[in-house]
Amino acid sequence: MVLIDGKKISDEIKSEIADEVKNIASKGEKIPHLAAILVGNDGGSETYVAHKVKACEQVGFQSTLIRLPSDVTESELLKQISGLNNNPSVDGFIVQLPLPKHIDEQKIIEAIDPNKDVDGFHPVNVGRTVIGLPAFISATPAGIVELIKRYQIDVSGKHCVVIGRSNIVGRPVSILLSQKNTPGDATVTVVHSRSKNLNEICLSADIIIAAIGSPGFVKANMVKEGAVIIDVGTTRVNAPETKSGWRLKGDVDFDSVAPKCSFITPVPGGVGPMTIVSLLKNTLLAAKKQ
Amino acid sequence: MVLIDGKKISDEIKSEIADEVKNIASKGEKIPHLAAILVGNDGGSETYVAHKVKACEQVGFQSTLIRLPSDVTESELLKQISGLNNNPSVDGFIVQLPLPKHIDEQKIIEAIDPNKDVDGFHPVNVGRTVIGLPAFISATPAGIVELIKRYQIDVSGKHCVVIGRSNIVGRPVSILLSQKNTPGDATVTVVHSRSKNLNEICLSADIIIAAIGSPGFVKANMVKEGAVIIDVGTTRVNAPETKSGWRLKGDVDFDSVAPKCSFITPVPGGVGPMTIVSLLKNTLLAAKKQ
Repeated sequence: MVLIDGKKISDEIKSEIADEVKNIASKGEKIPHLAAILVGNDGGSETYVAHKVKACEQVGFQSTLIRLPSDVTESELLKQISGLNNNPSVDGFIVQLPLPKHIDEQKIIEAIDPNKDVDGFHPVNVGRTVIGLPAFISATPAGIVELIKRYQIDVSGKHCVVIGRSNIVGRPVSILLSQKNTPGDATVTVVHSRSKNLNEICLSADIIIAAIGSPGFVKANMVKEGAVIIDVGTTRVNAPETKSGWRLKGDVDFDSVAPKCSFITPVPGGVGPMTIVSLLKNTLLAAKKQ
Repeated sequence: MVLIDGKKISDEIKSEIADEVKNIASKGEKIPHLAAILVGNDGGSETYVAHKVKACEQVGFQSTLIRLPSDVTESELLKQISGLNNNPSVDGFIVQLPLPKHIDEQKIIEAIDPNKDVDGFHPVNVGRTVIGLPAFISATPAGIVELIKRYQIDVSGKHCVVIGRSNIVGRPVSILLSQKNTPGDATVTVVHSRSKNLNEICLSADIIIAAIGSPGFVKANMVKEGAVIIDVGTTRVNAPETKSGWRLKGDVDFDSVAPKCSFITPVPGGVGPMTIVSLLKNTLLAAKKQ
Protein backbone atom coordinates (compact mmCIF):
# COMPACT_ATOMS: atom_id res chain seq x y z
CA MET A 1 0.00 0.00 0.00
CA VAL A 2 1.39 3.41 -1.02
CA LEU A 3 0.37 6.41 1.05
CA ILE A 4 -0.04 9.32 -1.37
CA ASP A 5 1.86 12.24 0.09
CA GLY A 6 0.02 15.36 -1.04
CA LYS A 7 2.20 17.52 1.17
CA LYS A 8 5.39 16.31 -0.50
CA ILE A 9 3.99 16.66 -4.03
CA SER A 10 2.61 20.11 -3.30
CA ASP A 11 6.02 21.18 -1.95
CA GLU A 12 7.65 19.90 -5.14
CA ILE A 13 5.21 21.85 -7.28
CA LYS A 14 5.62 24.99 -5.19
CA SER A 15 9.35 24.72 -5.69
CA GLU A 16 8.83 24.36 -9.48
CA ILE A 17 6.60 27.45 -9.46
CA ALA A 18 9.12 29.39 -7.33
CA ASP A 19 11.82 28.59 -9.91
CA GLU A 20 9.58 29.91 -12.67
CA VAL A 21 8.89 33.08 -10.71
CA LYS A 22 12.63 33.61 -10.20
CA ASN A 23 13.10 33.15 -13.92
CA ILE A 24 10.34 35.69 -14.66
CA ALA A 25 11.86 38.16 -12.19
CA SER A 26 15.36 37.71 -13.62
CA LYS A 27 14.02 38.78 -17.01
CA GLY A 28 12.53 41.89 -15.41
CA GLU A 29 9.00 40.74 -16.23
CA LYS A 30 5.93 41.22 -14.06
CA ILE A 31 5.62 38.90 -11.02
CA PRO A 32 2.29 36.97 -10.90
CA HIS A 33 -0.21 38.64 -8.61
CA LEU A 34 -3.12 36.88 -6.90
CA ALA A 35 -5.80 38.84 -5.07
CA ALA A 36 -8.42 37.46 -2.69
CA ILE A 37 -11.61 38.99 -1.38
CA LEU A 38 -12.65 37.81 2.06
CA VAL A 39 -16.10 38.82 3.31
CA GLY A 40 -16.74 38.61 7.05
CA ASN A 41 -14.84 36.59 9.67
CA ASP A 42 -15.80 32.93 9.19
CA GLY A 43 -13.14 30.81 10.89
CA GLY A 44 -12.75 28.29 8.08
CA SER A 45 -12.58 31.00 5.42
CA GLU A 46 -9.99 32.95 7.43
CA THR A 47 -7.81 29.83 7.59
CA TYR A 48 -8.15 29.02 3.88
CA VAL A 49 -7.36 32.57 2.78
CA ALA A 50 -4.39 32.78 5.17
CA HIS A 51 -3.02 29.56 3.62
CA LYS A 52 -3.44 30.99 0.13
CA VAL A 53 -1.67 34.23 1.00
CA LYS A 54 1.15 32.27 2.66
CA ALA A 55 1.50 30.01 -0.39
CA CYS A 56 1.83 33.10 -2.59
CA GLU A 57 4.70 34.31 -0.41
CA GLN A 58 6.37 30.88 -0.58
CA VAL A 59 6.51 30.90 -4.38
CA GLY A 60 7.31 34.60 -4.74
CA PHE A 61 3.92 35.79 -6.03
CA GLN A 62 2.57 39.18 -5.14
CA SER A 63 -0.68 38.87 -3.18
CA THR A 64 -3.41 41.23 -2.07
CA LEU A 65 -6.07 40.51 0.51
CA ILE A 66 -9.19 42.64 0.41
CA ARG A 67 -11.28 42.30 3.57
CA LEU A 68 -14.91 43.39 3.54
CA PRO A 69 -17.33 43.40 6.48
CA SER A 70 -19.98 40.65 6.65
CA ASP A 71 -22.72 43.23 6.06
CA VAL A 72 -21.14 44.53 2.84
CA THR A 73 -23.80 45.07 0.16
CA GLU A 74 -23.87 42.99 -2.99
CA SER A 75 -23.37 46.11 -5.09
CA GLU A 76 -20.29 47.13 -3.10
CA LEU A 77 -18.84 43.63 -3.56
CA LEU A 78 -19.61 43.82 -7.30
CA LYS A 79 -17.79 47.17 -7.41
CA GLN A 80 -14.71 45.59 -5.81
CA ILE A 81 -14.82 42.77 -8.37
CA SER A 82 -15.09 45.24 -11.21
CA GLY A 83 -12.06 47.04 -9.77
CA LEU A 84 -10.01 43.83 -9.81
CA ASN A 85 -11.27 42.92 -13.30
CA ASN A 86 -9.93 46.25 -14.54
CA ASN A 87 -6.72 46.31 -12.52
CA PRO A 88 -3.88 45.27 -14.86
CA SER A 89 -1.59 44.57 -11.91
CA VAL A 90 -3.85 41.71 -10.73
CA ASP A 91 -3.51 38.55 -12.87
CA GLY A 92 -6.11 36.47 -11.08
CA PHE A 93 -8.36 36.69 -8.06
CA ILE A 94 -10.78 34.72 -5.96
CA VAL A 95 -13.77 35.56 -3.82
CA GLN A 96 -13.61 33.21 -0.85
CA LEU A 97 -16.84 31.22 -0.50
CA PRO A 98 -19.27 30.83 1.19
CA LEU A 99 -20.65 34.38 1.16
CA PRO A 100 -23.21 35.83 3.61
CA LYS A 101 -26.78 34.86 2.74
CA HIS A 102 -27.86 38.30 1.54
CA ILE A 103 -25.41 38.03 -1.37
CA ASP A 104 -26.19 36.02 -4.52
CA GLU A 105 -23.14 33.77 -4.83
CA GLN A 106 -23.76 32.81 -8.45
CA LYS A 107 -24.08 36.47 -9.45
CA ILE A 108 -20.72 37.18 -7.81
CA ILE A 109 -19.04 34.24 -9.57
CA GLU A 110 -20.37 35.39 -12.94
CA ALA A 111 -19.14 38.96 -12.34
CA ILE A 112 -15.52 37.79 -12.30
CA ASP A 113 -13.69 38.21 -15.61
CA PRO A 114 -13.27 34.59 -16.86
CA ASN A 115 -9.66 35.47 -17.75
CA LYS A 116 -8.95 36.21 -14.08
CA ASP A 117 -11.19 33.48 -12.63
CA VAL A 118 -8.41 31.33 -11.15
CA ASP A 119 -10.93 29.39 -9.02
CA GLY A 120 -12.46 28.17 -12.31
CA PHE A 121 -16.04 28.57 -11.08
CA HIS A 122 -17.28 30.88 -13.87
CA PRO A 123 -19.61 29.10 -16.36
CA VAL A 124 -17.17 29.91 -19.18
CA ASN A 125 -14.37 28.02 -17.44
CA VAL A 126 -16.68 25.17 -16.45
CA GLY A 127 -17.91 24.91 -20.05
CA ARG A 128 -14.41 25.08 -21.51
CA THR A 129 -13.27 22.36 -19.11
CA VAL A 130 -16.16 20.12 -20.16
CA ILE A 131 -15.54 20.72 -23.87
CA GLY A 132 -11.82 20.01 -23.37
CA LEU A 133 -10.59 23.50 -24.24
CA PRO A 134 -7.83 25.33 -22.34
CA ALA A 135 -9.44 26.67 -19.15
CA PHE A 136 -8.89 27.48 -15.52
CA ILE A 137 -9.79 24.11 -14.03
CA SER A 138 -11.08 24.40 -10.49
CA ALA A 139 -8.52 23.70 -7.84
CA THR A 140 -9.61 20.48 -6.15
CA PRO A 141 -10.31 18.45 -9.31
CA ALA A 142 -7.09 19.74 -10.87
CA GLY A 143 -5.20 18.77 -7.71
CA ILE A 144 -6.62 15.24 -7.80
CA VAL A 145 -5.62 14.79 -11.44
CA GLU A 146 -2.13 16.10 -10.64
CA LEU A 147 -1.71 13.60 -7.78
CA ILE A 148 -2.74 10.74 -10.05
CA LYS A 149 -0.26 11.97 -12.67
CA ARG A 150 2.70 12.40 -10.31
CA TYR A 151 2.15 8.94 -8.77
CA GLN A 152 1.87 7.54 -12.32
CA ILE A 153 -1.39 5.78 -11.49
CA ASP A 154 -2.80 4.28 -14.67
CA VAL A 155 -6.50 5.14 -14.97
CA SER A 156 -6.99 4.53 -18.71
CA GLY A 157 -9.82 2.06 -19.29
CA LYS A 158 -10.17 1.51 -15.56
CA HIS A 159 -13.44 1.83 -13.66
CA CYS A 160 -13.44 4.97 -11.56
CA VAL A 161 -16.33 5.60 -9.17
CA VAL A 162 -16.81 9.18 -8.02
CA ILE A 163 -18.93 9.47 -4.89
CA GLY A 164 -20.64 12.87 -4.92
CA ARG A 165 -21.84 15.11 -7.74
CA SER A 166 -20.96 18.60 -6.49
CA ASN A 167 -20.17 21.32 -9.00
CA ILE A 168 -16.78 22.00 -7.48
CA VAL A 169 -15.42 18.46 -7.01
CA GLY A 170 -17.43 15.38 -7.98
CA ARG A 171 -18.80 16.58 -11.30
CA PRO A 172 -15.62 18.16 -12.72
CA VAL A 173 -13.28 15.37 -11.62
CA SER A 174 -15.63 12.78 -13.14
CA ILE A 175 -15.44 14.63 -16.46
CA LEU A 176 -11.67 15.19 -16.41
CA LEU A 177 -10.88 11.52 -15.76
CA SER A 178 -13.31 10.41 -18.46
CA GLN A 179 -11.82 12.66 -21.16
CA LYS A 180 -9.30 11.60 -23.78
CA ASN A 181 -6.26 12.72 -21.84
CA THR A 182 -3.33 11.59 -19.69
CA PRO A 183 -4.34 10.89 -17.00
CA GLY A 184 -7.83 10.20 -18.36
CA ASP A 185 -9.74 7.71 -20.52
CA ALA A 186 -11.24 6.15 -17.40
CA THR A 187 -14.71 4.62 -17.35
CA VAL A 188 -16.36 6.86 -14.80
CA THR A 189 -19.50 6.31 -12.73
CA VAL A 190 -20.90 9.13 -10.58
CA VAL A 191 -22.82 7.87 -7.55
CA HIS A 192 -24.70 10.04 -5.06
CA SER A 193 -27.32 10.08 -2.34
CA ARG A 194 -30.05 8.70 -4.64
CA SER A 195 -27.98 5.85 -6.08
CA LYS A 196 -29.18 2.30 -5.55
CA ASN A 197 -26.57 -0.50 -5.14
CA LEU A 198 -23.97 2.10 -4.17
CA ASN A 199 -21.91 -0.43 -2.20
CA GLU A 200 -21.93 -2.91 -5.07
CA ILE A 201 -20.84 -0.25 -7.57
CA CYS A 202 -18.01 0.93 -5.32
CA LEU A 203 -16.90 -2.69 -4.91
CA SER A 204 -16.43 -2.93 -8.69
CA ALA A 205 -14.22 0.20 -8.79
CA ASP A 206 -10.52 0.21 -9.60
CA ILE A 207 -10.40 3.82 -8.36
CA ILE A 208 -12.73 5.48 -5.83
CA ILE A 209 -12.87 9.24 -5.43
CA ALA A 210 -14.85 10.06 -2.30
CA ALA A 211 -16.24 13.60 -2.28
CA ILE A 212 -19.50 13.34 -0.40
CA GLY A 213 -18.61 15.16 2.84
CA SER A 214 -19.66 12.31 5.09
CA PRO A 215 -16.88 11.28 7.50
CA GLY A 216 -15.90 7.60 7.28
CA PHE A 217 -18.55 6.86 4.63
CA VAL A 218 -16.40 4.46 2.58
CA LYS A 219 -15.94 1.24 4.54
CA ALA A 220 -13.65 -1.71 3.83
CA ASN A 221 -16.55 -3.84 2.55
CA MET A 222 -17.12 -1.30 -0.27
CA VAL A 223 -13.53 -1.52 -1.54
CA LYS A 224 -11.99 -4.06 -3.91
CA GLU A 225 -8.56 -5.48 -3.04
CA GLY A 226 -5.90 -3.32 -4.73
CA ALA A 227 -8.13 -0.31 -5.39
CA VAL A 228 -6.86 3.28 -5.52
CA ILE A 229 -8.58 5.57 -3.00
CA ILE A 230 -8.67 9.36 -3.25
CA ASP A 231 -10.33 10.94 -0.24
CA VAL A 232 -11.57 14.51 -0.76
CA GLY A 233 -13.56 14.74 2.48
CA THR A 234 -12.46 17.25 5.12
CA THR A 235 -15.08 17.35 7.83
CA ARG A 236 -14.26 18.79 11.24
CA VAL A 237 -15.11 16.20 13.90
CA ASN A 238 -14.85 16.47 17.66
CA ALA A 239 -11.48 15.37 19.03
CA PRO A 240 -11.14 16.13 22.73
CA GLU A 241 -7.52 14.90 22.62
CA THR A 242 -6.43 17.81 20.38
CA LYS A 243 -5.70 21.35 21.50
CA SER A 244 -8.34 22.80 19.15
CA GLY A 245 -10.93 20.20 20.18
CA TRP A 246 -11.43 19.04 16.59
CA ARG A 247 -9.61 17.28 13.77
CA LEU A 248 -10.23 16.74 10.07
CA LYS A 249 -11.80 13.43 9.04
CA GLY A 250 -12.08 12.21 5.46
CA ASP A 251 -14.91 10.40 3.69
CA VAL A 252 -12.99 7.13 3.95
CA ASP A 253 -12.70 4.93 7.03
CA PHE A 254 -8.93 5.03 6.65
CA ASP A 255 -7.86 2.40 9.19
CA SER A 256 -10.04 -0.37 7.77
CA VAL A 257 -9.71 0.63 4.08
CA ALA A 258 -5.97 1.37 3.81
CA PRO A 259 -4.75 -2.24 4.14
CA LYS A 260 -6.81 -3.23 1.05
CA CYS A 261 -5.55 -0.43 -1.24
CA SER A 262 -2.75 -0.08 -3.73
CA PHE A 263 -2.74 3.72 -3.19
CA ILE A 264 -4.60 5.90 -0.70
CA THR A 265 -4.60 9.58 0.25
CA PRO A 266 -4.60 10.48 3.94
CA VAL A 267 -6.71 13.26 5.48
CA PRO A 268 -5.13 15.68 6.18
CA GLY A 269 -2.09 15.72 3.89
CA GLY A 270 -3.58 14.17 0.75
CA VAL A 271 -5.80 16.17 -1.59
CA GLY A 272 -5.93 19.27 0.66
CA PRO A 273 -2.41 20.62 0.03
CA MET A 274 -2.89 20.06 -3.73
CA THR A 275 -5.83 22.44 -3.85
CA ILE A 276 -3.73 25.49 -3.07
CA VAL A 277 -0.99 24.62 -5.56
CA SER A 278 -3.66 24.27 -8.26
CA LEU A 279 -4.70 27.82 -7.47
CA LEU A 280 -1.07 28.96 -7.74
CA LYS A 281 -0.73 27.14 -11.08
CA ASN A 282 -3.85 28.85 -12.40
CA THR A 283 -2.48 32.22 -11.29
CA LEU A 284 0.80 31.55 -13.07
CA LEU A 285 -1.17 30.60 -16.19
CA ALA A 286 -3.24 33.80 -15.91
CA ALA A 287 -0.06 35.87 -15.59
CA LYS A 288 1.39 34.26 -18.72
CA LYS A 289 -1.81 34.95 -20.65
CA GLN A 290 -1.95 38.64 -19.74
CA MET B 1 -41.94 -3.80 -24.96
CA VAL B 2 -42.94 -0.21 -25.65
CA LEU B 3 -41.68 1.37 -28.85
CA ILE B 4 -40.91 5.01 -28.04
CA ASP B 5 -42.55 7.11 -30.73
CA GLY B 6 -40.36 10.18 -31.15
CA LYS B 7 -42.38 11.31 -34.16
CA LYS B 8 -45.63 11.35 -32.18
CA ILE B 9 -44.09 13.13 -29.18
CA SER B 10 -42.39 15.68 -31.40
CA ASP B 11 -45.70 16.37 -33.15
CA GLU B 12 -47.37 16.88 -29.78
CA ILE B 13 -44.68 19.33 -28.73
CA LYS B 14 -44.83 21.17 -32.05
CA SER B 15 -48.55 21.55 -31.56
CA GLU B 16 -47.98 22.92 -28.04
CA ILE B 17 -45.45 25.40 -29.43
CA ALA B 18 -47.81 26.39 -32.27
CA ASP B 19 -50.50 27.16 -29.66
CA GLU B 20 -48.07 29.38 -27.78
CA VAL B 21 -47.11 31.19 -30.97
CA LYS B 22 -50.80 31.81 -31.75
CA ASN B 23 -51.19 33.17 -28.25
CA ILE B 24 -48.17 35.47 -28.69
CA ALA B 25 -49.50 36.66 -32.05
CA SER B 26 -52.97 37.30 -30.66
CA LYS B 27 -51.44 39.65 -28.12
CA GLY B 28 -49.69 41.51 -30.91
CA GLU B 29 -46.28 40.49 -29.61
CA LYS B 30 -43.25 39.58 -31.69
CA ILE B 31 -43.24 36.12 -33.30
CA PRO B 32 -40.13 34.01 -32.45
CA HIS B 33 -37.52 34.17 -35.20
CA LEU B 34 -34.86 31.51 -35.83
CA ALA B 35 -32.04 32.11 -38.29
CA ALA B 36 -29.65 29.52 -39.71
CA ILE B 37 -26.35 29.94 -41.50
CA LEU B 38 -25.53 27.21 -43.99
CA VAL B 39 -22.03 27.14 -45.46
CA GLY B 40 -21.53 25.16 -48.67
CA ASN B 41 -23.70 22.39 -50.09
CA ASP B 42 -23.08 19.29 -47.97
CA GLY B 43 -26.01 16.90 -48.56
CA GLY B 44 -26.58 16.04 -44.90
CA SER B 45 -26.39 19.66 -43.80
CA GLU B 46 -28.83 20.72 -46.56
CA THR B 47 -31.33 18.14 -45.31
CA TYR B 48 -30.97 19.09 -41.64
CA VAL B 49 -31.36 22.81 -42.33
CA ALA B 50 -34.35 22.20 -44.60
CA HIS B 51 -36.01 20.23 -41.79
CA LYS B 52 -35.34 23.05 -39.34
CA VAL B 53 -36.81 25.68 -41.65
CA LYS B 54 -39.86 23.48 -42.27
CA ALA B 55 -40.34 22.94 -38.54
CA CYS B 56 -40.29 26.72 -38.02
CA GLU B 57 -43.09 27.07 -40.57
CA GLN B 58 -45.10 24.31 -38.89
CA VAL B 59 -45.13 26.09 -35.52
CA GLY B 60 -45.54 29.61 -36.94
CA PHE B 61 -42.01 30.90 -36.26
CA GLN B 62 -40.34 33.34 -38.58
CA SER B 63 -37.20 31.81 -40.10
CA THR B 64 -34.25 33.10 -42.11
CA LEU B 65 -31.76 30.99 -44.01
CA ILE B 66 -28.42 32.58 -44.84
CA ARG B 67 -26.47 30.60 -47.43
CA LEU B 68 -22.75 31.18 -47.81
CA PRO B 69 -20.42 29.57 -50.36
CA SER B 70 -18.08 26.80 -49.18
CA ASP B 71 -15.08 29.08 -49.77
CA VAL B 72 -16.42 31.86 -47.56
CA THR B 73 -13.65 33.30 -45.37
CA GLU B 74 -13.70 32.93 -41.62
CA SER B 75 -13.82 36.69 -41.21
CA GLU B 76 -16.84 37.00 -43.52
CA LEU B 77 -18.62 34.28 -41.52
CA LEU B 78 -17.74 36.09 -38.29
CA LYS B 79 -19.21 39.29 -39.78
CA GLN B 80 -22.47 37.47 -40.55
CA ILE B 81 -22.58 36.16 -36.98
CA SER B 82 -21.98 39.62 -35.59
CA GLY B 83 -24.84 40.85 -37.76
CA LEU B 84 -27.21 38.27 -36.30
CA ASN B 85 -25.95 38.94 -32.75
CA ASN B 86 -26.92 42.59 -33.21
CA ASN B 87 -30.15 42.05 -35.12
CA PRO B 88 -33.01 42.53 -32.62
CA SER B 89 -35.46 40.77 -34.98
CA VAL B 90 -33.53 37.47 -34.63
CA ASP B 91 -34.15 35.71 -31.30
CA GLY B 92 -31.82 32.78 -31.86
CA PHE B 93 -29.65 31.34 -34.59
CA ILE B 94 -27.50 28.38 -35.49
CA VAL B 95 -24.49 27.83 -37.70
CA GLN B 96 -24.97 24.40 -39.26
CA LEU B 97 -21.99 22.12 -38.56
CA PRO B 98 -19.66 20.75 -39.82
CA LEU B 99 -17.92 23.75 -41.39
CA PRO B 100 -15.29 23.63 -44.17
CA LYS B 101 -11.81 22.81 -42.87
CA HIS B 102 -10.36 26.29 -43.37
CA ILE B 103 -12.75 27.65 -40.72
CA ASP B 104 -12.08 27.26 -36.98
CA GLU B 105 -15.35 25.74 -35.76
CA GLN B 106 -14.73 26.50 -32.08
CA LYS B 107 -14.00 30.16 -32.88
CA ILE B 108 -17.31 30.37 -34.74
CA ILE B 109 -19.24 28.76 -31.87
CA GLU B 110 -17.72 31.20 -29.38
CA ALA B 111 -18.57 34.18 -31.59
CA ILE B 112 -22.29 33.53 -31.18
CA ASP B 113 -23.99 35.62 -28.48
CA PRO B 114 -24.75 33.06 -25.71
CA ASN B 115 -28.22 34.62 -25.42
CA LYS B 116 -28.95 33.64 -29.03
CA ASP B 117 -27.06 30.33 -28.98
CA VAL B 118 -30.08 28.05 -29.38
CA ASP B 119 -27.83 25.09 -30.30
CA GLY B 120 -26.34 25.38 -26.79
CA PHE B 121 -22.77 24.79 -27.98
CA HIS B 122 -21.22 28.00 -26.53
CA PRO B 123 -19.03 27.32 -23.45
CA VAL B 124 -21.29 29.60 -21.39
CA ASN B 125 -24.31 27.43 -22.12
CA VAL B 126 -22.34 24.21 -21.61
CA GLY B 127 -21.05 25.54 -18.28
CA ARG B 128 -24.48 26.73 -17.15
CA THR B 129 -25.96 23.33 -18.06
CA VAL B 130 -23.29 21.53 -16.01
CA ILE B 131 -23.74 23.84 -13.01
CA GLY B 132 -27.53 23.36 -13.23
CA LEU B 133 -28.36 26.97 -14.11
CA PRO B 134 -30.97 28.00 -16.70
CA ALA B 135 -29.31 27.53 -20.10
CA PHE B 136 -29.88 26.62 -23.71
CA ILE B 137 -29.37 22.87 -23.44
CA SER B 138 -28.15 21.35 -26.68
CA ALA B 139 -30.83 19.78 -28.79
CA THR B 140 -30.13 16.05 -28.76
CA PRO B 141 -29.55 15.64 -25.00
CA ALA B 142 -32.57 17.85 -24.30
CA GLY B 143 -34.64 15.71 -26.70
CA ILE B 144 -33.59 12.51 -24.95
CA VAL B 145 -34.53 13.90 -21.54
CA GLU B 146 -37.89 15.06 -22.94
CA LEU B 147 -38.65 11.57 -24.33
CA ILE B 148 -37.85 10.00 -20.95
CA LYS B 149 -40.11 12.56 -19.28
CA ARG B 150 -43.07 12.14 -21.64
CA TYR B 151 -42.92 8.33 -21.39
CA GLN B 152 -42.72 8.69 -17.58
CA ILE B 153 -39.67 6.43 -17.42
CA ASP B 154 -38.34 6.43 -13.87
CA VAL B 155 -34.58 6.94 -13.91
CA SER B 156 -34.06 8.08 -10.31
CA GLY B 157 -31.47 5.89 -8.57
CA LYS B 158 -31.27 3.63 -11.64
CA HIS B 159 -28.04 2.71 -13.37
CA CYS B 160 -27.76 4.49 -16.69
CA VAL B 161 -24.89 3.64 -19.03
CA VAL B 162 -24.08 6.23 -21.69
CA ILE B 163 -22.00 4.81 -24.54
CA GLY B 164 -19.96 7.64 -26.03
CA ARG B 165 -18.47 10.80 -24.55
CA SER B 166 -19.01 13.38 -27.29
CA ASN B 167 -19.44 17.02 -26.34
CA ILE B 168 -22.79 17.27 -28.07
CA VAL B 169 -24.53 14.07 -26.91
CA GLY B 170 -22.80 11.61 -24.57
CA ARG B 171 -21.23 14.05 -22.15
CA PRO B 172 -24.20 16.43 -21.70
CA VAL B 173 -26.85 13.71 -21.46
CA SER B 174 -24.73 11.88 -18.85
CA ILE B 175 -24.64 15.06 -16.76
CA LEU B 176 -28.34 15.92 -17.17
CA LEU B 177 -29.52 12.48 -16.06
CA SER B 178 -27.15 12.48 -13.09
CA GLN B 179 -28.32 15.87 -11.78
CA LYS B 180 -30.88 16.43 -9.03
CA ASN B 181 -33.85 16.80 -11.34
CA THR B 182 -36.92 15.12 -12.81
CA PRO B 183 -36.05 13.15 -14.84
CA GLY B 184 -32.64 12.82 -13.22
CA ASP B 185 -30.94 11.44 -10.11
CA ALA B 186 -29.68 8.46 -12.12
CA THR B 187 -26.39 6.73 -11.37
CA VAL B 188 -24.58 7.37 -14.64
CA THR B 189 -21.57 5.60 -16.12
CA VAL B 190 -19.94 6.94 -19.29
CA VAL B 191 -18.24 4.23 -21.34
CA HIS B 192 -16.19 4.79 -24.50
CA SER B 193 -13.67 3.29 -26.88
CA ARG B 194 -11.04 2.88 -24.13
CA SER B 195 -13.36 1.24 -21.58
CA LYS B 196 -12.56 -2.27 -20.39
CA ASN B 197 -15.44 -4.63 -19.49
CA LEU B 198 -17.77 -2.54 -21.63
CA ASN B 199 -20.15 -5.45 -22.25
CA GLU B 200 -20.32 -6.31 -18.57
CA ILE B 201 -21.04 -2.70 -17.61
CA CYS B 202 -23.80 -2.42 -20.23
CA LEU B 203 -25.30 -5.67 -18.96
CA SER B 204 -25.69 -4.09 -15.50
CA ALA B 205 -27.55 -1.07 -16.93
CA ASP B 206 -31.21 -0.28 -16.31
CA ILE B 207 -30.99 2.32 -19.07
CA ILE B 208 -28.58 2.38 -22.03
CA ILE B 209 -28.05 5.50 -24.11
CA ALA B 210 -26.07 4.56 -27.20
CA ALA B 211 -24.32 7.53 -28.83
CA ILE B 212 -21.17 6.09 -30.30
CA GLY B 213 -21.95 6.30 -34.04
CA SER B 214 -21.26 2.62 -34.68
CA PRO B 215 -24.18 0.88 -36.42
CA GLY B 216 -25.55 -2.14 -34.53
CA PHE B 217 -22.91 -1.85 -31.77
CA VAL B 218 -25.25 -2.79 -28.91
CA LYS B 219 -26.09 -6.49 -29.16
CA ALA B 220 -28.65 -8.54 -27.23
CA ASN B 221 -25.94 -10.11 -25.03
CA MET B 222 -25.07 -6.61 -23.70
CA VAL B 223 -28.61 -5.85 -22.57
CA LYS B 224 -30.35 -6.83 -19.34
CA GLU B 225 -33.91 -8.13 -19.52
CA GLY B 226 -36.30 -5.16 -19.09
CA ALA B 227 -33.74 -2.44 -19.85
CA VAL B 228 -34.64 0.91 -21.42
CA ILE B 229 -32.75 1.57 -24.67
CA ILE B 230 -32.27 5.02 -26.20
CA ASP B 231 -30.53 4.85 -29.58
CA VAL B 232 -28.91 8.09 -30.72
CA GLY B 233 -27.01 6.61 -33.65
CA THR B 234 -27.90 7.71 -37.17
CA THR B 235 -25.35 6.29 -39.56
CA ARG B 236 -26.11 6.04 -43.25
CA VAL B 237 -25.61 2.45 -44.38
CA ASN B 238 -25.92 0.99 -47.85
CA ALA B 239 -29.39 -0.25 -48.64
CA PRO B 240 -29.76 -1.27 -52.31
CA GLU B 241 -33.48 -1.92 -51.73
CA THR B 242 -34.20 1.78 -51.12
CA LYS B 243 -34.56 4.47 -53.77
CA SER B 244 -31.71 6.53 -52.29
CA GLY B 245 -29.48 3.49 -51.92
CA TRP B 246 -29.02 4.09 -48.19
CA ARG B 247 -30.94 4.04 -44.93
CA LEU B 248 -30.30 5.21 -41.37
CA LYS B 249 -29.07 2.62 -38.90
CA GLY B 250 -28.82 3.16 -35.16
CA ASP B 251 -26.14 2.08 -32.68
CA VAL B 252 -28.39 -0.71 -31.44
CA ASP B 253 -28.99 -4.06 -33.15
CA PHE B 254 -32.72 -3.39 -32.96
CA ASP B 255 -34.12 -6.77 -34.01
CA SER B 256 -32.21 -8.77 -31.41
CA VAL B 257 -32.32 -6.17 -28.63
CA ALA B 258 -35.96 -4.99 -28.82
CA PRO B 259 -37.56 -8.19 -27.47
CA LYS B 260 -35.54 -7.86 -24.22
CA CYS B 261 -36.44 -4.21 -23.53
CA SER B 262 -39.10 -2.45 -21.53
CA PHE B 263 -38.74 0.64 -23.78
CA ILE B 264 -36.75 1.21 -26.96
CA THR B 265 -36.38 4.02 -29.51
CA PRO B 266 -36.40 3.10 -33.20
CA VAL B 267 -34.06 4.62 -35.80
CA PRO B 268 -35.38 6.59 -37.56
CA GLY B 269 -38.35 8.00 -35.63
CA GLY B 270 -36.93 7.93 -32.11
CA VAL B 271 -34.48 10.55 -30.90
CA GLY B 272 -34.08 12.22 -34.31
CA PRO B 273 -37.42 14.07 -34.47
CA MET B 274 -36.91 15.27 -30.87
CA THR B 275 -33.74 17.12 -31.79
CA ILE B 276 -35.54 19.65 -33.96
CA VAL B 277 -38.28 20.31 -31.40
CA SER B 278 -35.60 20.99 -28.79
CA LEU B 279 -34.22 23.65 -31.10
CA LEU B 280 -37.69 25.14 -31.47
CA LYS B 281 -38.15 25.12 -27.69
CA ASN B 282 -34.82 26.92 -27.23
CA THR B 283 -35.86 29.52 -29.80
CA LEU B 284 -39.15 30.08 -27.99
CA LEU B 285 -37.20 30.49 -24.75
CA ALA B 286 -34.84 32.96 -26.42
CA ALA B 287 -37.78 34.97 -27.74
CA LYS B 288 -39.31 35.13 -24.26
CA LYS B 289 -36.00 36.30 -22.78
CA GLN B 290 -35.52 39.14 -25.26
